[in-house]
Amino acid sequence: MEKKLTLETLARMVEGELSGDPSLEISGFGPLDSAGPGDISFLVDVKYYDQAVESGAAAILVGKKIAVEVDNFVRVDDAYLASAIIQNHFLAHPFDAGGIHDSAVIGQNCRFGKEITIGAQVVIGDRVTLGEQVEICAGVVIGPDVTIGDGSTIKSNVTIERGCELGERVVIHPGCVIGSDGYGYATDKQGFHVKRPQLGTVKIGDDVEIGANSCVDRATFGVTWIKSGTKIDNLVQVGHNVVVGENSLLVAQVGIAGSTTLGRNVVMGGQAGAVGHISVGDGTMVAGMSAIHGNQPAGARLAGIPAIEGRQWFKSATAFSKLPELLKDVRKIKKVLASREDQDESPNKEG
Amino acid sequence: MEKKLTLETLARMVEGELSGDPSLEISGFGPLDSAGPGDISFLVDVKYYDQAVESGAAAILVGKKIAVEVDNFVRVDDAYLASAIIQNHFLAHPFDAGGIHDSAVIGQNCRFGKEITIGAQVVIGDRVTLGEQVEICAGVVIGPDVTIGDGSTIKSNVTIERGCELGERVVIHPGCVIGSDGYGYATDKQGFHVKRPQLGTVKIGDDVEIGANSCVDRATFGVTWIKSGTKIDNLVQVGHNVVVGENSLLVAQVGIAGSTTLGRNVVMGGQAGAVGHISVGDGTMVAGMSAIHGNQPAGARLAGIPAIEGRQWFKSATAFSKLPELLKDVRKIKKVLASREDQDESPNKEG
Amino acid sequence: MEKKLTLETLARMVEGELSGDPSLEISGFGPLDSAGPGDISFLVDVKYYDQAVESGAAAILVGKKIAVEVDNFVRVDDAYLASAIIQNHFLAHPFDAGGIHDSAVIGQNCRFGKEITIGAQVVIGDRVTLGEQVEICAGVVIGPDVTIGDGSTIKSNVTIERGCELGERVVIHPGCVIGSDGYGYATDKQGFHVKRPQLGTVKIGDDVEIGANSCVDRATFGVTWIKSGTKIDNLVQVGHNVVVGENSLLVAQVGIAGSTTLGRNVVMGGQAGAVGHISVGDGTMVAGMSAIHGNQPAGARLAGIPAIEGRQWFKSATAFSKLPELLKDVRKIKKVLASREDQDESPNKEG
Repeated sequence: MEKKLTLETLARMVEGELSGDPSLEISGFGPLDSAGPGDISFLVDVKYYDQAVESGAAAILVGKKIAVEVDNFVRVDDAYLASAIIQNHFLAHPFDAGGIHDSAVIGQNCRFGKEITIGAQVVIGDRVTLGEQVEICAGVVIGPDVTIGDGSTIKSNVTIERGCELGERVVIHPGCVIGSDGYGYATDKQGFHVKRPQLGTVKIGDDVEIGANSCVDRATFGVTWIKSGTKIDNLVQVGHNVVVGENSLLVAQVGIAGSTTLGRNVVMGGQAGAVGHISVGDGTMVAGMSAIHGNQPAGARLAGIPAIEGRQWFKSATAFSKLPELLKDVRKIKKVLASREDQDESPNKEG
Repeated sequence: MEKKLTLETLARMVEGELSGDPSLEISGFGPLDSAGPGDISFLVDVKYYDQAVESGAAAILVGKKIAVEVDNFVRVDDAYLASAIIQNHFLAHPFDAGGIHDSAVIGQNCRFGKEITIGAQVVIGDRVTLGEQVEICAGVVIGPDVTIGDGSTIKSNVTIERGCELGERVVIHPGCVIGSDGYGYATDKQGFHVKRPQLGTVKIGDDVEIGANSCVDRATFGVTWIKSGTKIDNLVQVGHNVVVGENSLLVAQVGIAGSTTLGRNVVMGGQAGAVGHISVGDGTMVAGMSAIHGNQPAGARLAGIPAIEGRQWFKSATAFSKLPELLKDVRKIKKVLASREDQDESPNKEG
Repeated sequence: MEKKLTLETLARMVEGELSGDPSLEISGFGPLDSAGPGDISFLVDVKYYDQAVESGAAAILVGKKIAVEVDNFVRVDDAYLASAIIQNHFLAHPFDAGGIHDSAVIGQNCRFGKEITIGAQVVIGDRVTLGEQVEICAGVVIGPDVTIGDGSTIKSNVTIERGCELGERVVIHPGCVIGSDGYGYATDKQGFHVKRPQLGTVKIGDDVEIGANSCVDRATFGVTWIKSGTKIDNLVQVGHNVVVGENSLLVAQVGIAGSTTLGRNVVMGGQAGAVGHISVGDGTMVAGMSAIHGNQPAGARLAGIPAIEGRQWFKSATAFSKLPELLKDVRKIKKVLASREDQDESPNKEG
């Protein structure tokens, strides 16, 4: 109840332009097909126009260039963004500190915030530091000397190895492994691989989110570093000594090989990869299932294996299906030219 | 012992044609090289012919078009299928209800079938419903309000998040994560990614099997839905709001991006991917390491990045290695044509 | 302290050529920028030359063909290998047997070495055998009849299913799943997939290391076999009945489909794949994100989808971006030839 907002306040929150009754009270958020009388909803695409008109929502957030005929709406630049801001407002709730579950096993000399939740079957090593309002879910294993900042959540069955340092408001989804050994070997003359000790750690900035079953390896020396605001999807591999800049997006099943540095606001599509020891500039976008084989300037748009400029790749990929025909054409042309050469030459010889 | 079947009964089970003694008693199943006197074995390929003749098996399931000279055999359309049916018959055993292990932590207001097994170190949230003959293996974490149907098995160290609904005879292999947050953000003008709350759940139909360390994300709103009979291999990523139709096969490391719908009996080869918000028709088959970038009709055969018609792709992929030579040829042709043009032109100029 | 070595001893350990004071005492190892007075460091690339000269290290391991002007150094063929050998010497420590944690749940009729560590919340099935100096970390689940050799470490939240056999000095990183069911179904006429029982196990040789969240499936019959000395990175999929030869390297997110055999010292780059039922010869190297579709001889160098000879692929991949231009050129050439044909023909017709 205490979360009620007038449509006017809400429009200000999302920097939108209000059309309708400014004093209308909004108490929740829902999608067009299920929003109720006190809810605000959102319309991002004209194809949902009919749903919008028929929706039970009290008001609607409407993206640019979409006409609507409803009594109350707020026009915004990005209806997804406005929705997210408003939803997060309505969903926010005070931290419910559950304390430490009886079945959890806690190491020595740990320092925990006053308000924390540590779930069942959790194992926490020695000298671990947890900030305020940290939640460690069931089945998590945290090694010694790990630090986790205020407001962070570690979901179930995650493993965080010794010495890793996580910032504030970090979310690590189930099954992730943070800080396991980097993949580093030196091969002797018999072909036997001698392990190079992995002595560094992992550093994760504020507001980072890492998807289920993803892996971030510890550095050989120094740190593997995921900077603040970066969001990583499921089943992503981040190799040792990688640096991922602020607010980057690594979509599912991406792989970044060791010692590569990504700039800020880099986007890598699903199943894309980058080789090791390269540098990718700020704001670069890489299409899914592409492979970056070399350094990239800021703002590049890349696709392909190896990745080239995106539009160029798209043209080549389109031409790819014509390759067999092209091959035939060229064979035919060669034949024609050869036969004409004969014709050209015969008069010469005779001449 | 009580599992003994006559060869006649067994031939009927697999709709096969019996050759030999119908009253022969069969009590087990084994591969050609280790089958014993009471066993039936199987022959799928002539290259194992010698093994078949020398096998200690009492009888053999033989695929179409394979000649054999053994006393007792059953000719079937698909020797793999017949083997699977018979093996499953011999391996079937009554459910061995182990009850709830002392170390398991169970929430409040749960409803469990009378015959269940809950392993050591399991954590189950509030209001969880487990059907009859459900097995929850060691280390599993199940969130609140999850429902699991009769005869399902959740293997070790799986995480199932709040509110997910699993059907009957479902098998979830170790390390899977079902129902973690979908990957959804809206980006503000500063480049900061605002999380879009993921409020839906995951619904899994009957007879679905999901391989080790695979992930199925919960929907933004509504459900991510794996329909009945679908089999998913290891390390597969299924994004939020994806629908996978009945009896589909997603081979290892496949990735399906958000809001994509696959039809029934779709097959995606290992490491293949599909972008988000597309629709793939029934029975479509996608080669491994291919990427679907747009809607696909039923029955398509696809390969490549982006995926095109399979045979077309194969021809182009074969031609690909000739590309450098082709480039040279065309350069040469251009030179020849240019020189002839000179020749052609020179008489004109002189004429 | 007792680990101190003279520079002479150390040079012998790495088969290096000493320059400087043979009696210099070395007590540790560190990277150039943090090595202290008693440490040895390493220089692998001339670009770190300045760091080497300014380093606080007492001595430096120097790779071939790199000039250095420091008082004490050891010239070696491979500075990475020499470093690894020396680091491992200094880091080696006696096994610290922690015994069995109170919260661990241990099955019946197990046989454990005298010196072992079993962490918190571990679950071990019946008839499990652990050798000497084995460490089972927190949250691990081990099925019945598993055998693990001397000196092996199973990191947190790993699952090892029934009957698998691990050699000596094996390291399994967090979240791995060893021995879950292979992906095998036979499809009936209604399109329903009947599970083929997976009755084999997994065998892992000595000195094998498997990265975080990787999966090795059990065989249908017989064994899936990772031979000694092989190193597997994170999120790798090894299908049922696969054999990986000695000292092979499978980089992150590689996938090997069922019944494929890799030789010894095979290297597969990140996100590469191999289809099932093929054979890949000793020493073959496969570029990242490539797909092997057929048998390969020993020593092959492969890249592409499907993989072809590496240099050939590189040339074709380079030519790929010129494909649209090539298409235009050939169209133009065809037009020119057609118009000339007209010219050629017209005199004939007129003649």
